[in-house]
Amino acid sequence: MPRSGAEARRRLQQAALELYRERGFDQTTTAEIAARAGVNERTFFRHFPDKREVLFDGESDLRAALMQAVAEAPEGLQPLETLLRAFRKVERILEDNRPFAEPRLQVIAATPALRERDLAKAAAITEAVAEALRQRGVTDRLSGLAAQIGWAAFHQAIQAWIDDPSQSLDAHLLHAFDDLRALSATALPAQ
Amino acid sequence: MPRSGAEARRRLQQAALELYRERGFDQTTTAEIAARAGVNERTFFRHFPDKREVLFDGESDLRAALMQAVAEAPEGLQPLETLLRAFRKVERILEDNRPFAEPRLQVIAATPALRERDLAKAAAITEAVAEALRQRGVTDRLSGLAAQIGWAAFHQAIQAWIDDPSQSLDAHLLHAFDDLRALSATALPAQ
Repeated sequence: MPRSGAEARRRLQQAALELYRERGFDQTTTAEIAARAGVNERTFFRHFPDKREVLFDGESDLRAALMQAVAEAPEGLQPLETLLRAFRKVERILEDNRPFAEPRLQVIAATPALRERDLAKAAAITEAVAEALRQRGVTDRLSGLAAQIGWAAFHQAIQAWIDDPSQSLDAHLLHAFDDLRALSATALPAQ
Repeated sequence: MPRSGAEARRRLQQAALELYRERGFDQTTTAEIAARAGVNERTFFRHFPDKREVLFDGESDLRAALMQAVAEAPEGLQPLETLLRAFRKVERILEDNRPFAEPRLQVIAATPALRERDLAKAAAITEAVAEALRQRGVTDRLSGLAAQIGWAAFHQAIQAWIDDPSQSLDAHLLHAFDDLRALSATALPAQ
């Protein structure tokens, strides 16, 4: 039996991910996850409200870290500079989670119920980031759009880094922001 | 009793929207929606698979129109020019739906189950638009990001137009694309 709560939590996540890949999300029960992790089902529910949430454990940490990084950015930065700086500050959270990240994204992509949850989590993070920008004095109109496009670039960078680990997440992030600038520069009404 | 299928469909949508606003989505049954629309419950299920879908009827039309507009854009346009042109082409679909749009957005915002469906629909449209860009020869990397940021600007414009109908949807759309350009131009690593 795992000794600490944190250890049980980590083993539950690992067990869930393995089972979702082996038999599919729908065919896996919380009892089976608990059994593979070497804990009982009550322990599962002490850590997670349902079998979807077990794959989204890092999201609240990521959201909190992003909001803090936006709040602490130096004054005078433009909204997207603020966001790029904040994303660079939280790269470490994703890098530490790298072994878990690739199989996790595969399971999510293959499971509609997990995809919906993933979209809801991304929307929640985007709204939190927009709120953090508003608290820095960015207008309602710009804060929402800035959060959406910044998050789109960050998300793109994470996916590219999963697909191509030969470059660092930071390199992919800078590349995605280059793409964002290049694409938007030509977002003019066609003649 | 409504005579045609299209008329029954429209009445079911209207009835559902009224009931969701009056008592909330969770407290409304498909039988009640059918009764208010003056049809039987079997007719409801001939038109819609569930009581969520009844609010997302226009999405497949919008997606098809967007994909067609992207496919038919003149050669040589940049990805975001192509998308802006496509969004302008489909404004009419949204304008025709204007009376339905505002209460619909309010109900969605207030109902988590509908918000999840709304996010899934938006993701499906974004993926379809990215695919239409890829078919024009835009790279995988740029097509996904272009679709996401273009859709973010379009979505922002629709929301702004609902909040402020004194300007046309087209004016709000051009404004949102201006915002997109201005925000992205400063998306540089902070010193």
